[in-house]
Amino acid sequence: MRPELTEPLKRLAERAEGVLASVLPPATLEPCRLHEAMRYSVLGGGKRLRPLLCYAGMLAVGGRLEWADRAAAALEIIHAYSLIHDDLPAMDDDDLRRGKPTCHIAFDEATAILAGDALQALAFELITDDPHGVPERARLAAIRTLAVACGSQGMAGGQAFDLAAVGQVLDESELKRMHAHKTGALIRAAVLMGAELSGQADTRQITQLAQFGSLVGLGFQIKDDILDIEGSTEAIGKRQGADIARNKPTFPSIMGLDAAKTAAEHTREQALAALASFGPEAELLRDLAHHSVDRNS
Amino acid sequence: MRPELTEPLKRLAERAEGVLASVLPPATLEPCRLHEAMRYSVLGGGKRLRPLLCYAGMLAVGGRLEWADRAAAALEIIHAYSLIHDDLPAMDDDDLRRGKPTCHIAFDEATAILAGDALQALAFELITDDPHGVPERARLAAIRTLAVACGSQGMAGGQAFDLAAVGQVLDESELKRMHAHKTGALIRAAVLMGAELSGQADTRQITQLAQFGSLVGLGFQIKDDILDIEGSTEAIGKRQGADIARNKPTFPSIMGLDAAKTAAEHTREQALAALASFGPEAELLRDLAHHSVDRNS
Repeated sequence: MRPELTEPLKRLAERAEGVLASVLPPATLEPCRLHEAMRYSVLGGGKRLRPLLCYAGMLAVGGRLEWADRAAAALEIIHAYSLIHDDLPAMDDDDLRRGKPTCHIAFDEATAILAGDALQALAFELITDDPHGVPERARLAAIRTLAVACGSQGMAGGQAFDLAAVGQVLDESELKRMHAHKTGALIRAAVLMGAELSGQADTRQITQLAQFGSLVGLGFQIKDDILDIEGSTEAIGKRQGADIARNKPTFPSIMGLDAAKTAAEHTREQALAALASFGPEAELLRDLAHHSVDRNS
Repeated sequence: MRPELTEPLKRLAERAEGVLASVLPPATLEPCRLHEAMRYSVLGGGKRLRPLLCYAGMLAVGGRLEWADRAAAALEIIHAYSLIHDDLPAMDDDDLRRGKPTCHIAFDEATAILAGDALQALAFELITDDPHGVPERARLAAIRTLAVACGSQGMAGGQAFDLAAVGQVLDESELKRMHAHKTGALIRAAVLMGAELSGQADTRQITQLAQFGSLVGLGFQIKDDILDIEGSTEAIGKRQGADIARNKPTFPSIMGLDAAKTAAEHTREQALAALASFGPEAELLRDLAHHSVDRNS
């Protein structure tokens, strides 16, 4: 069991934090309240899983960390925007996120909608402009991967599946489809964008990393559902039991808690197997596959 | 007075309509309700001003129409997303848009939020992939221009200024700043993106077209405020007098109706002057400068 991030991953999470703080508009810049809400929602919390996967994907194909900096920040910014909008009264109506009041509680609903909107635009802006000379073709590929992962066939589509599923009886394949869109698409995109921005990944590597990303996304979600039952509100930073209270289908509710734990283990093994042809350069990806299933929060 | 679009512009609006219909996901594709909401909000209505400005900007620097197709669609898609979110209960709380129920009325609030989010992602996706061989550098520049125009220093920021202005006393410069962000940024971006995607505009042309775009955006907004007073609900497709009812500052409310009309005229002249060094290739841009001030709806 490796519930904590390894030291190299902790350092990369700090790196991502630094990049995020520098690319977000300062709260002193007008419109100040909007910029304050954007910074509030992105900084000072979160596991930074998507930036870590992006950095680790870059290293797995022999690229340099700085080539992934802006994409790593963009991924976390997209993730933060999606949480702001998911938490809105018309959506999941959550008041607590990462142990803090959600954006529309700390600010107001209109500001929360706009902060999410502006964050999405900022994410795409970041990748267009790279000071480290990443080839234009690689940046376009990464923007495309991100846009598809965010859209109606990715994250936004997954949230639509999710809303439609409340109070419904889903089978396992429908639940998997929902999560493959809602969280899986962006997690998969994170690994892929790292590899794409290296400008040196071959097609076989891209295919394997995409498979790895999908499996880590699935394992992460199964673990999320398990933590909704077994975790404490304090540790997970959002209301424990929130999914159950909302009558949302989860992996444990469909297959039982023990079978969900077995499925998470199986997913971890498959994810590691997808990296079989990679050497030690993929070690951080492997660490992240373990962490996504072993974490306590 | 040229209240109607000229024939060449009408044909370009039809061209944009065709591109939009083809790039939006079909309503038969899951999640169907989300795709239905996206198509409902984009298709079958609207002046298509931003696509027209993009096409006209492309022609003004000698480029080919097909190079602007996807950017033209992206601009209208961004505009549609912004209207969906602006109309939400937490924002302007409008029930009528383009003569039809707004998205959250026709569908529901959660679907409206998600449709807007997915449309924004789709817009960026569209420009990454161009079947007509537009150079990668030009596509990246256009994506950047669009992202900046959408973000907290553009459209989303303008909406934040707008919300903060309700019930406040603004002076003319504050009102101009709000509109330069809220509508001006995207209108300016439309002209610029057309020129950028040609791959053949020089710096001087870009500067002049940016100035033109800003002025057309201002003229368009002043006229919008005038139509809010003088237009009929039927013609403008949204509630006549909505801004006044909401106690929003407008150009007529700050400077008086006659002075607002004079300001619109003056803005038109300045916009035409910005194109002084362009020849007949900028004729459609000139037509659009006239139309934005002469229109009845």
